[in-house]
Amino acid sequence: MATKGMSSSASTPAADPVALLSALIRCPSVTPAEGGALALLESVLAPAGFRVSRPVFSEAGTPDVENLFATIGSGSPHLVFAGHTDVVPPGDAARWRHDPFSGAVDEGFLFGRGAVDMKGGIAAFLAAAIDFLGGRNGTFKGSISLLITGDEEGPSLNGTVKLLDWAAREGHRFDGAIVGEPTNPKALGDAIKVGRRGSLSGRITVFGRQGHVAYPDLAINPIPQLVKLVRRLTAEALDDGSERFDPSNLEFVGLDVDNTAWNVIPAEASARFNIRFNDQWTVETLEAWLAARLDEAAGNEIAYELDLQPGWSQSFLTHSPELIDALSDAVEAVTGRRPELSTSGGTSDARFIKDYCPVVEFGLVGQTMHQIDERASVDDLRALTAIYRRFLDRWFG
Amino acid sequence: MATKGMSSSASTPAADPVALLSALIRCPSVTPAEGGALALLESVLAPAGFRVSRPVFSEAGTPDVENLFATIGSGSPHLVFAGHTDVVPPGDAARWRHDPFSGAVDEGFLFGRGAVDMKGGIAAFLAAAIDFLGGRNGTFKGSISLLITGDEEGPSLNGTVKLLDWAAREGHRFDGAIVGEPTNPKALGDAIKVGRRGSLSGRITVFGRQGHVAYPDLAINPIPQLVKLVRRLTAEALDDGSERFDPSNLEFVGLDVDNTAWNVIPAEASARFNIRFNDQWTVETLEAWLAARLDEAAGNEIAYELDLQPGWSQSFLTHSPELIDALSDAVEAVTGRRPELSTSGGTSDARFIKDYCPVVEFGLVGQTMHQIDERASVDDLRALTAIYRRFLDRWFG
Repeated sequence: MATKGMSSSASTPAADPVALLSALIRCPSVTPAEGGALALLESVLAPAGFRVSRPVFSEAGTPDVENLFATIGSGSPHLVFAGHTDVVPPGDAARWRHDPFSGAVDEGFLFGRGAVDMKGGIAAFLAAAIDFLGGRNGTFKGSISLLITGDEEGPSLNGTVKLLDWAAREGHRFDGAIVGEPTNPKALGDAIKVGRRGSLSGRITVFGRQGHVAYPDLAINPIPQLVKLVRRLTAEALDDGSERFDPSNLEFVGLDVDNTAWNVIPAEASARFNIRFNDQWTVETLEAWLAARLDEAAGNEIAYELDLQPGWSQSFLTHSPELIDALSDAVEAVTGRRPELSTSGGTSDARFIKDYCPVVEFGLVGQTMHQIDERASVDDLRALTAIYRRFLDRWFG
Repeated sequence: MATKGMSSSASTPAADPVALLSALIRCPSVTPAEGGALALLESVLAPAGFRVSRPVFSEAGTPDVENLFATIGSGSPHLVFAGHTDVVPPGDAARWRHDPFSGAVDEGFLFGRGAVDMKGGIAAFLAAAIDFLGGRNGTFKGSISLLITGDEEGPSLNGTVKLLDWAAREGHRFDGAIVGEPTNPKALGDAIKVGRRGSLSGRITVFGRQGHVAYPDLAINPIPQLVKLVRRLTAEALDDGSERFDPSNLEFVGLDVDNTAWNVIPAEASARFNIRFNDQWTVETLEAWLAARLDEAAGNEIAYELDLQPGWSQSFLTHSPELIDALSDAVEAVTGRRPELSTSGGTSDARFIKDYCPVVEFGLVGQTMHQIDERASVDDLRALTAIYRRFLDRWFG
């Protein structure tokens, strides 16, 4: 006798990604609200044979957030699809061509907040998985899980990090992951993300001696000293980039002096920076690079402190040909274009997943994300579904 | 018949500067409160023949402040003595050896807030003037005025500036002025101030383009650009000083970036500075010096604005041998030391008086001013009285 999951999946009709996305958009899941989006997913996943859990995670000082973990099968390999149903606020709804939570289709586009970031990716994967499982008629030997959070656009404390930990404690081991974030800058097929730069923030504080501007000999002005340190760190590039990565980059984001007077030399001055760094660096080698240059510029003259901020992430690069080739081939087969293997852009939840299994990211075109009139091309949505469907065939062999 | 003023001055007994100062300190004239100090001065000046006015000046947004103008005689030359009875707050009175408003004498020192800054100067001048006028027995042909404000330690809007204007409109023309501020760094006789540096403040704002740190090519970071401009202005000295002046000096006092995020390149960054400048510069030549260097460093790359702040003052140097020599000789005769002719330190009300007549500054030793246990040496107070007394003899010839 087949398992309950197997038998029911075999009887599920193919889901339509356009209808699914439209229904998801009608759930006003502005972060951290669930908005009915996870309930909708469960109503589709459960009849398809998935075992669905909706754990709620808490953290002092942040709202409780509901998440969803759905899994089918118990064999290997085990693929996990990761995404989020929470969306950023729509802004002024009156400026939208269609209500941001209507899911309206107009001139080949499906309008709504979250259409590309990233309810579209979820709808496409869900449709592809149900179609794939239906085609296997109960002979599927692997496992497919969906790891969906409601806390990606918010503080990201009650989402993917805790959900991965929860799944591991439930006994789930993954062999590969796809994140359905919008990875294509302009057209479907532009780019798969196969890694991400790391991110490290820090503060440099220079300690002087307060005094009156009329008596500079009695004071030590920390501002020219801080400026000297800032100049030193911007004087040279960290690197020239590597095979899969852009050059690492340091940006100063703040200068802080606690002084409103015009006739007082302040006691302290500080500068804040963020570094996005590639696979030539770790947080540890960066700290050494920073300290060497700051010490050199400071000499015995400048008293400073370097404080690295918590919440940094290391860079990572996924080295799984099975995953990358299977997805690249699927993209090429559907779009006719070989995707770039990219590591550019901001961070995503892939930085947490990479600690559990190889992870790649591919989704819709990101151009309208977080904007007024966010919208997904209906053709792209169907093509993305076809790409995921081909990938599943290839990856599960 | 002699004027009322002349006849009464001739009959006034010599005033004791120690008793006068002690009585003045017992008036709690913490700025902007009158505290009874001006009433006390009037009670001494009027019987000595001075015509006393106590004009109150107002300015929107600041407290009304009472001032005192007292004058005797109607001939030339006309000497004006300038000072202030308002004092800074005493701080924690419990930390004082003697109550800050007790005027206690202990081990040769007269304790209290304002003892040296500058009720002591007022008491010494008042005692000297009354003694001088008494000695002339009604034959005095010149004029002596006291220009006393209650708004020197505060916003300085309802004090000396308006009192000078008021006196001019009343028909008073001055030939020389002494400000009784504490000018001696360590010992009575150290220094006469014969000028002051000018002061000019400004803000440099650099305009970039806001963006996400992960996409620096889409943004323009104003922070490294501002740092480049700051470095340019600190790269060279304004001058090497001149005969009577220290080198001019530019100090940065603030750096301001309105950004609390760690992943955002800010849109703007600004730096605030103050320049203390000598007689080689005017506000106009400084502005040209700043603009030339900022333009050179900015080139076509950096969009910046330079905003000079109101409230600047030009530098000045007093060129009156009569005034300077008479006071220097008096100091030397009493202390045995030739005073330095100094232009160092912060600004004082002399910057306003210099527009009316030559002005010099000489008073007590400033070491304890604005501190807990502010105190005047009784010997110094008597010596300062003797100096002013000799100066009056010499100047009125």
